[in-house]
This record gives sequence, C-alpha cells and structure tokens, in this order.
Amino acid sequence: MPETEIDTLIRLFSRLPGFGVRSARRTVLHLIKKKETQLIPLSAAIQKVIDNVRICPVCGNLDSIAPCHICQDLKRDEGILCVVQDVADLWAIERSAAFKGRYHVLGGLLSAIEGTGPDELRLPALEKRICENHISELILALPATVDGQTTGHYIAERFKNIPVRISSLAQGIPVGGELDYLDDGTIQTALKARK
Amino acid sequence: MPETEIDTLIRLFSRLPGFGVRSARRTVLHLIKKKETQLIPLSAAIQKVIDNVRICPVCGNLDSIAPCHICQDLKRDEGILCVVQDVADLWAIERSAAFKGRYHVLGGLLSAIEGTGPDELRLPALEKRICENHISELILALPATVDGQTTGHYIAERFKNIPVRISSLAQGIPVGGELDYLDDGTIQTALKARK
Repeated sequence: MPETEIDTLIRLFSRLPGFGVRSARRTVLHLIKKKETQLIPLSAAIQKVIDNVRICPVCGNLDSIAPCHICQDLKRDEGILCVVQDVADLWAIERSAAFKGRYHVLGGLLSAIEGTGPDELRLPALEKRICENHISELILALPATVDGQTTGHYIAERFKNIPVRISSLAQGIPVGGELDYLDDGTIQTALKARK
Repeated sequence: MPETEIDTLIRLFSRLPGFGVRSARRTVLHLIKKKETQLIPLSAAIQKVIDNVRICPVCGNLDSIAPCHICQDLKRDEGILCVVQDVADLWAIERSAAFKGRYHVLGGLLSAIEGTGPDELRLPALEKRICENHISELILALPATVDGQTTGHYIAERFKNIPVRISSLAQGIPVGGELDYLDDGTIQTALKARK
C-alpha cells in the first residue's frame, strides 16, 4: 500500500529532534482535529518563514529583514561583538536582555573530530568585520566544552595582533544553583575564580 | 516590537501536545536550518493533509478518500464492527494486524463530568449502521477507564433488543508484562478471568 498523506506527515514529524513515531502520530492527529485553529495557522506560519526568513549577511542571525533587526538597530553598540556558536545562543542572550551590542554567529565550533576548520565557520567574516568596523571588544560567549574552549583560544590567537579586547563569559555557579547538585568541574572553576 | 515570523512559528509549535517554548524553539531552529530537506517537505505534506484529509462519513476514520480505504476494502468483514473511542485507537488496532472487520469511531466517551452525552458521540450513526447493514458482532475496544466502561455498558444496554453480539477486549496481563510492575487492579482482573 502506498504511503498515505497522513503517514507522510507523521514520517516528517518523526524526524524532528525529540520526536519519535509515537509522538509524531499524536501530534499529527491533534493537528488534524484542530484543523482550523492550529493546522491551518501552522501551515501559513511555515510558509511565511520559508518565504521570508534569511541568514543575516552581517552577523549570521536569522531574520526576515537583511541585515537583521539587531544589525539595523542604531541604539545598539556597534563596537562590541558577542561571538556565539549558534542562533539559539544569540536568542538566549537576547532573552537575558543583558547585552546591547551586536552579534557574530560562527555557525559551529572548531572540531578536530568532526573535521571543522576555521574556514567552515564564519571566522573570515569576523576578521573582516573587526578590521573594517572599529570593533573595540569581542565577547566570546562559547560553550564551556572542549570544542568551545578550543575555538575561543583559536580566536584569541588569530586576532592577537589586532587592537581588539577579547573577553569570555565568566564561569562559576549558576544563579540559584545548589552546590550539592553541581559537578566537580564547575565547583573547582568557581573556587579558582573566587573574588 | 511586533511578533516576528519566527516567533509566530515558535508560538504555534509551543501549543502542540508535549511541546513547551524551549522545545518549540529548538524545533523551529532545526527546521529553518534544514529548510530544503525538512521544512519545505513538511510544509508540502501539511498542505496536502489540509486539502485532502476528511472524516470518513461511514466510520469516522480520517483518510483522503471517502469512504475511507478500510470501509472500501471488500476483503474486510462487513459484519463485524470494532467500536473505538478515537482514530488513534483505530490506528493502534490496525498496527496489530489482528482485526479484519470494519470500525466505528465514537469520537469520545460518555462522561458525566465533561457533560458528554450519547448524541455528542457517533452513537446514532452506529445504531443506523447496525440496523441497516446486518452487523453480526460489535467488538467494544474501549479504554479500561470509568468512562470507557460506562460507555461500553451504555452501548450494551442501548442495543440489547437488536440481534447483534457484543463483546469487549479481554482484560489481563499485557504480553511481556512483569507481575511485579503491574497495578493491583490488573492483577485482580487477570486472576478473576483466569482460564
């Protein structure tokens, strides 16, 4: 029997992160039952994203205008760039509302295992931006993993002859974090960086 | 700031069962990154479901043909109807490949708390079907909950003067079930129904 239209939709949903066949079936059935209030609006929203959302040519953010609304916002400090691995990290920093500069999305991390070199990331674009736009500070907001730290060191080394201040996010105990539940590495780092 | 197109899509995803804002964000970002291989096919599949999938006027199943492919399948026994609460249950029984009759989807269960009466369900349609189509057996495949059992008793009572055999799914220990992990009710039922 050929795949039905419902089966096709279930198969596509089941390929999403965090989905399995069961949850895909449940979601598809839910959507079909709520056709007017959920399925049709979802379809329209997807179509708009397909038609309009593009990668910002300046910073690598995703937006329906190019350059993105952050790059176009004159109230934001042009001289400070926050370097992030991914758009998800940019969104997380925006939600914190603690940063009023611009961003640069690398699109990944250097990784010997996955064979990701500097030219696969948006590092040449970062270099060009620093040289042409009088960037005074780079804030490296990279994950505290081996690849994240490697990438941070690489960036610091690569731009050491350019007059730009490079800082990293502080490491320590998360706000509201119970010591009892934290891993040894975090406690050690927080102790060393005590102030 | 007005809601962006990405935010709209995240909001719609976050209303799906099992989704929160975090998982919706992750899914939307994943889909935008896999635009060609996942987002566009998903959009096309949703559009096809919107355009074509309808409720089968005979049994209440969802399909892109009406009557549905089960109601049209001449190899299936027309005389046996399996009564289920929902299309999800019909799908589950179809996956088991153990039933070769037709279905009748009630679209819910009788519920005093939710105020669901017989006319909100597809019970008049079931009565019409039984009288007009020489149905010899009704298999009640309803959940083993209070509402499920109430609905089962109501159906048995309603059709007691019609010459149709009414049976229910057996209750007992699930295949592969460890006694240690089963609830008391299931063990009691399985003991009482021993054979």
